[in-house]
Amino acid sequence: MTHSRFRSAALRSAAALLPLCLLAASDPPPANPGPGDIIAAAPAGDWVQIAPEDLLVMELAPDAKGKPRRVVIQLIAAPISQPWVANIRKLATAHWWDGTAIVRVQDNYVVQWGDPDAEDEAKARPLPKEVKPLVEAGERGGNGYAARLPNHSGEGGPADFRSPPPVLGPDSYVRNPHFYKSWPMANGPRVRTGAIAGVPPTYEAWPVHCYGMVGVGRNLSPDMGSGAELYTVIGHAPRHLDRNIALVGRVIEGIEHMSSLARGTGPLGFYETAEERTAIRSVRLVSDLPEAQRPKFEYLDSLSESFAAYADARKNRKDAFFNIPAGGADICNIPVPIRKITQ
Amino acid sequence: MTHSRFRSAALRSAAALLPLCLLAASDPPPANPGPGDIIAAAPAGDWVQIAPEDLLVMELAPDAKGKPRRVVIQLIAAPISQPWVANIRKLATAHWWDGTAIVRVQDNYVVQWGDPDAEDEAKARPLPKEVKPLVEAGERGGNGYAARLPNHSGEGGPADFRSPPPVLGPDSYVRNPHFYKSWPMANGPRVRTGAIAGVPPTYEAWPVHCYGMVGVGRNLSPDMGSGAELYTVIGHAPRHLDRNIALVGRVIEGIEHMSSLARGTGPLGFYETAEERTAIRSVRLVSDLPEAQRPKFEYLDSLSESFAAYADARKNRKDAFFNIPAGGADICNIPVPIRKITQ
Repeated sequence: MTHSRFRSAALRSAAALLPLCLLAASDPPPANPGPGDIIAAAPAGDWVQIAPEDLLVMELAPDAKGKPRRVVIQLIAAPISQPWVANIRKLATAHWWDGTAIVRVQDNYVVQWGDPDAEDEAKARPLPKEVKPLVEAGERGGNGYAARLPNHSGEGGPADFRSPPPVLGPDSYVRNPHFYKSWPMANGPRVRTGAIAGVPPTYEAWPVHCYGMVGVGRNLSPDMGSGAELYTVIGHAPRHLDRNIALVGRVIEGIEHMSSLARGTGPLGFYETAEERTAIRSVRLVSDLPEAQRPKFEYLDSLSESFAAYADARKNRKDAFFNIPAGGADICNIPVPIRKITQ
Repeated sequence: MTHSRFRSAALRSAAALLPLCLLAASDPPPANPGPGDIIAAAPAGDWVQIAPEDLLVMELAPDAKGKPRRVVIQLIAAPISQPWVANIRKLATAHWWDGTAIVRVQDNYVVQWGDPDAEDEAKARPLPKEVKPLVEAGERGGNGYAARLPNHSGEGGPADFRSPPPVLGPDSYVRNPHFYKSWPMANGPRVRTGAIAGVPPTYEAWPVHCYGMVGVGRNLSPDMGSGAELYTVIGHAPRHLDRNIALVGRVIEGIEHMSSLARGTGPLGFYETAEERTAIRSVRLVSDLPEAQRPKFEYLDSLSESFAAYADARKNRKDAFFNIPAGGADICNIPVPIRKITQ
């Protein structure tokens, strides 16, 4: 059965992110380390622990077999989208999402959650007083989360923001993708409606809608959403949403509990009946949990040499399965390595 | 409840492909037609019916509620990957897949199906005699499906193959993406292991691993797979597989029956027990079905003006939800419009 004998090996090298720590300490390093090898060999100093106030734990109702479904979300780094991030922390602290639900699952697009009664004024749950709905102030454009970033020309931004790593594959990237504090970003001239003639454009950077990124549902401009209605990407990166919706984080554990849900059959993948929805039992900010109950995670620092080697290995697969390395990779094909810390 | 009143409208304009024919004949054309409007208005002559020998119907076991799960696959156009396509037609005609199963579901990657006993020589089902396992002949490289394409420099290829449409967004594309007979393609210098010094490179084109594309599982080179083990993409396009695995088609109906399956918990998303697998009841080539039972589909011709307008609208969203059009789109964010013909 030569046609299929090694079938399970067929796509092995292509796995998105293999289980880590496959190498025992006594194993020699592989001749052509793959992305997983590089992650496993990265020194402790290349990892950054995620602060507990940047982690949300969402408990969905158990699945049909009674198995728990936990989703962990990392909130995005400052200065990106901080007005929404502040709201989200307050909503979690107020236990606002407890009893809400996943209301929409659209194939190759998004899973969305929030108050199922949001459109019924009589039944909709009010926002806590301390949570302010956000609207465009002054300039139109819906890109407040980008406008709030430091000026890319150099004024006031963090070092790796002013000088993104060089673009590594000339035809493999879209809008100067780079990583900022291990978040996938793009940059370009700042877009303003009604720009003043003669005033040179300034530059801005913005986060990218990769698989698993979490964004803020909103209505038409000038509404920018409060952060109470969220979605995550479960398909090919919908880059047309970049700069049009604020990104506030990413799913770092349990995305499969969202991406494998039955697709909604209403317009845009909304569920048509309450029975189809998946209940959200609770959403907690990890810094609100007792110390002993706090899950801990760490990410590979995008400024580290390990990260550069990892990204290069993702772009140029050299293990036995690959005959032709691509020579480049979409930024969304370089998922940031993130792992649970278990002592 | 201004924060969420129009919640369901929030991402409406961003839908991957809206239900067609939303415009009544008496409605005036919209001022800024979106992708769905353009598809709905495309003249009949811009649509191409898919030949019945290019369609496979796969019936999965019904879901937990007893609902049928039908998946329709369009086989890729000649001259791409034709040795595998020929095998696949023979396997379907021999009813080879009946009683096989979906054996692997890896999140943000692939769903894979075939003989669950393929690795057990005693139990594996043999290939029909007329189906030949394919191996690299002569040059190494695993890119036989590309090498079998007409020379891109102009010898012998169809017109739209020799002259791909110009790249439309200078930083929005990867490796000269274009469409060939409405299939997503890339091109570049031909890769040969052991190229002869002094011989100028020739060019080749190859299909791209977009969401829903169907490819052939294989072992290590020189094995190239028979076509009996197939997978489809259910995540961000794994472009590193381009030219390393033969693409043979795409799912054009029912992808949600695959993408929403529970993820496998074994390495690479393989299911660990037989009970977790989804049974394949049958796979039929539509040309083998009685005329009255043949489903009919048509695709929008990538050489038509409607397609160009549709692609442009995907790159530059102008409807009310979008404040900043992207100005370009990844080829995998321009899914080819395909619809069922219902008389």
